[in-house]
Amino acid sequence: MNTVDLNCDLGESFGRYTLGLDAEVIPLVSSCNIACGMHAGDPAVMEKTVALAAEAGVAIGAHPGYPDLQGFGRRDLNLSPEEAYAFTVYQIGALAGFCAARNVELNHVKPHGQLYNRAAVDPELAAAIARAVRDVDPELVLVGLANSELIAAGGQAGLAVAQEFFTDRNYTDEGLLASRTRPDALITDEEFAVTRVVRVVKEGTIESVSGKTIEIQADTICVHGDNSHALEFVRRIRTALVAEGIAVEPIA
Amino acid sequence: MNTVDLNCDLGESFGRYTLGLDAEVIPLVSSCNIACGMHAGDPAVMEKTVALAAEAGVAIGAHPGYPDLQGFGRRDLNLSPEEAYAFTVYQIGALAGFCAARNVELNHVKPHGQLYNRAAVDPELAAAIARAVRDVDPELVLVGLANSELIAAGGQAGLAVAQEFFTDRNYTDEGLLASRTRPDALITDEEFAVTRVVRVVKEGTIESVSGKTIEIQADTICVHGDNSHALEFVRRIRTALVAEGIAVEPIA
Amino acid sequence: MNTVDLNCDLGESFGRYTLGLDAEVIPLVSSCNIACGMHAGDPAVMEKTVALAAEAGVAIGAHPGYPDLQGFGRRDLNLSPEEAYAFTVYQIGALAGFCAARNVELNHVKPHGQLYNRAAVDPELAAAIARAVRDVDPELVLVGLANSELIAAGGQAGLAVAQEFFTDRNYTDEGLLASRTRPDALITDEEFAVTRVVRVVKEGTIESVSGKTIEIQADTICVHGDNSHALEFVRRIRTALVAEGIAVEPIA
Amino acid sequence: MNTVDLNCDLGESFGRYTLGLDAEVIPLVSSCNIACGMHAGDPAVMEKTVALAAEAGVAIGAHPGYPDLQGFGRRDLNLSPEEAYAFTVYQIGALAGFCAARNVELNHVKPHGQLYNRAAVDPELAAAIARAVRDVDPELVLVGLANSELIAAGGQAGLAVAQEFFTDRNYTDEGLLASRTRPDALITDEEFAVTRVVRVVKEGTIESVSGKTIEIQADTICVHGDNSHALEFVRRIRTALVAEGIAVEPIA
Repeated sequence: MNTVDLNCDLGESFGRYTLGLDAEVIPLVSSCNIACGMHAGDPAVMEKTVALAAEAGVAIGAHPGYPDLQGFGRRDLNLSPEEAYAFTVYQIGALAGFCAARNVELNHVKPHGQLYNRAAVDPELAAAIARAVRDVDPELVLVGLANSELIAAGGQAGLAVAQEFFTDRNYTDEGLLASRTRPDALITDEEFAVTRVVRVVKEGTIESVSGKTIEIQADTICVHGDNSHALEFVRRIRTALVAEGIAVEPIA
Repeated sequence: MNTVDLNCDLGESFGRYTLGLDAEVIPLVSSCNIACGMHAGDPAVMEKTVALAAEAGVAIGAHPGYPDLQGFGRRDLNLSPEEAYAFTVYQIGALAGFCAARNVELNHVKPHGQLYNRAAVDPELAAAIARAVRDVDPELVLVGLANSELIAAGGQAGLAVAQEFFTDRNYTDEGLLASRTRPDALITDEEFAVTRVVRVVKEGTIESVSGKTIEIQADTICVHGDNSHALEFVRRIRTALVAEGIAVEPIA
Repeated sequence: MNTVDLNCDLGESFGRYTLGLDAEVIPLVSSCNIACGMHAGDPAVMEKTVALAAEAGVAIGAHPGYPDLQGFGRRDLNLSPEEAYAFTVYQIGALAGFCAARNVELNHVKPHGQLYNRAAVDPELAAAIARAVRDVDPELVLVGLANSELIAAGGQAGLAVAQEFFTDRNYTDEGLLASRTRPDALITDEEFAVTRVVRVVKEGTIESVSGKTIEIQADTICVHGDNSHALEFVRRIRTALVAEGIAVEPIA
Repeated sequence: MNTVDLNCDLGESFGRYTLGLDAEVIPLVSSCNIACGMHAGDPAVMEKTVALAAEAGVAIGAHPGYPDLQGFGRRDLNLSPEEAYAFTVYQIGALAGFCAARNVELNHVKPHGQLYNRAAVDPELAAAIARAVRDVDPELVLVGLANSELIAAGGQAGLAVAQEFFTDRNYTDEGLLASRTRPDALITDEEFAVTRVVRVVKEGTIESVSGKTIEIQADTICVHGDNSHALEFVRRIRTALVAEGIAVEPIA
């Protein structure tokens, strides 16, 4: 039987600031990526979020980001590979601490924001992140953009990898994200987006921006719990997958 | 044969800012406590410091503090026990990440600054810290002020504890630190200080501020590597201990 | 004619995190207190909020707080008076920069959270804050809890002061806030709260927790724009004041 | 008579961390640039540094940087022009607060580190910084790299500008800094460096990396107070200038 993972970023609140409908989205996904206090999240939020995830039985991942709360990890900080390595080890370790405290396993690592984007195209940064993951725990799965440098680096480091697919983004002929500067970068037709997700999971193909059929391995689908509309969209995707006999399950 | 541990805080640099003669003091001690990025230290510094300690073969401990870099963890942040728990788990986990990456064991946890001072007298805070240590890893040794609430809380949590002795502080009849507001709070006669350390390790007693002989269990001695004078003092203590047949060894 | 000021905290968002219905509450008040980037707010938020306030024509105040974003300035950081002085000068100056850039006047300073609470009872801290305000600009009005040490310190420093009244808090016989540990600390009957505000503005008296009639000078009333219910309550207060012929105007 | 300004960065300490021999270098310069708490410095340090500069009678400038203490403002944060504007207004305002509190004038603004470097070549960023300076106070002098975009932007904004010259860097034929990747980027012959400074102040020319004589207007010379060797070098420059009848004076 076909299976796929649905993953969602959680634990992005900070102190007095609340972000995301964590409790509502968690029953809809199979995996979560928990912010580690650098671009979002704080120790109290992490503790609560790990507890929430453990209770819901979803797989827990670390979601390390650039150390830039004010920029939410979306600015490129131009860390050297050595710095990126250290900041990644730090954040994985911190989240692993909360997992240990709850007696629940840390399953995977998915970089956040600009760390994710840049690791998709920068082999040196990708290698530094892969090394950080492997050095902390070689059993961790590394989640990255499908067909990206991060996936390649994870494989080279001997890690299990999971290729991530975005429901709302168009792809180039090379199977990478079409630039946001293009007018057709985003997919706004949700009906079509849902159909496309089912197809990529079942057949491993989508049509690129140029209309060409390309192959993408979609091990995990990125979904969001920012607001009620986003939640509704996750429900539609989940329903469509299940209707096609696809099981929603964490990355092995 | 008698043994005692000499411990020193390390890894207190941050970015462009350098603090402490880490490379010079490390050959003189048997344990180190590495700052975890909240009151001092950053991921790059932690990575380097764990490598330094691993190479020197000294036992590595986490040195969690209040999240207050500008105040160096010396202000009382009045964290609730729940907050202190989460901040302690976070910091131990982060340092454990670097230890895992270096294939070296995390041995102990010693709170820093005001977190240490308050945990010595506040049973609720002490219990929260002890719980954090145990929940992350029950094999970790909890280091606290001799005769303090933190030592009691560690015992109640089922942790191995190490009672810390200060070479430059006078003690009350109850075996606690004499308040810094007292004129005789500090011991400035280094000759006497060295003699006293040897005595407390061998016999488990010192004279209190009132002249009374009191019992103190000194499992570990706090030393400093801030400057060349401090280093000289560590050397004197180490020499005096060895001359008395006392082995300088990490906390078991 | 009677006048009173309605003041509201604004600009408490930070980076990706949004807090408060600033645009909705601003037409209802005569003054605002803008967070200065230490307990909340960031430069981009400050810039936008000063623009919003300037456009609405409300009086602008600086709202300095303890440097503790994660704790939202609600923890007591135990800053020394010298530190509190420096942190207050810094924050007033930063906000004054945005006011200068918009060609709008900075009118007043109201400390935030625990800095406000402690300055109400700690004469040394109160004096440090009053000195900071006066040293930056002796024309600034200092806003503090009615009958508090901060009001006294402002007067001693030669500053104009504005005594603040809380609509939802009960008061002791001494005219100070009843402790939050008391069951009757909070006023939950909004009808009564509105009536009481009108009375305190017109007559300068309320009934204390013991039923005694006490005098309170209410120069400015603290209101909130956190959610739609809070906005509704501000409208009720404003309507009731206007119906009694009381003008809602900034502190002179 | 010829005059030139010697400027030095000051106030780069933070909390427990000390950087720079501020008290030693200040008698040797005519201007200082004080860090504003974003890449270095904190309110207590700023207060102390403004007092030191005021007492020494040197001209005081704000030294705004990217908000990145761990990276010391040397990473490129890729702030948008709007963000850079807000962060610059904030920092100038904060320092102006301390100047007001000491009754001393704020004279100039010199961006720090990567904010300085990027504003030298990026017209949009340069314009944003120039606008920030002018909007806070059009009397402030904007200090930037000689011949750079920041100098051009300052002129366009109607600001007085001061062109900065580096004693230890080689220049291209275009009068810009030779890239650090070139082997001849740095000037290590101090004798030659001193001679060159005197020449550039007297004649407005130096020889570029290609041996061509180029024109550079050196209104202010950047010197350092990091260590005793740096201090010695400042003394040599100052002595050489004075020997040639050049007065060391603040930017008008």
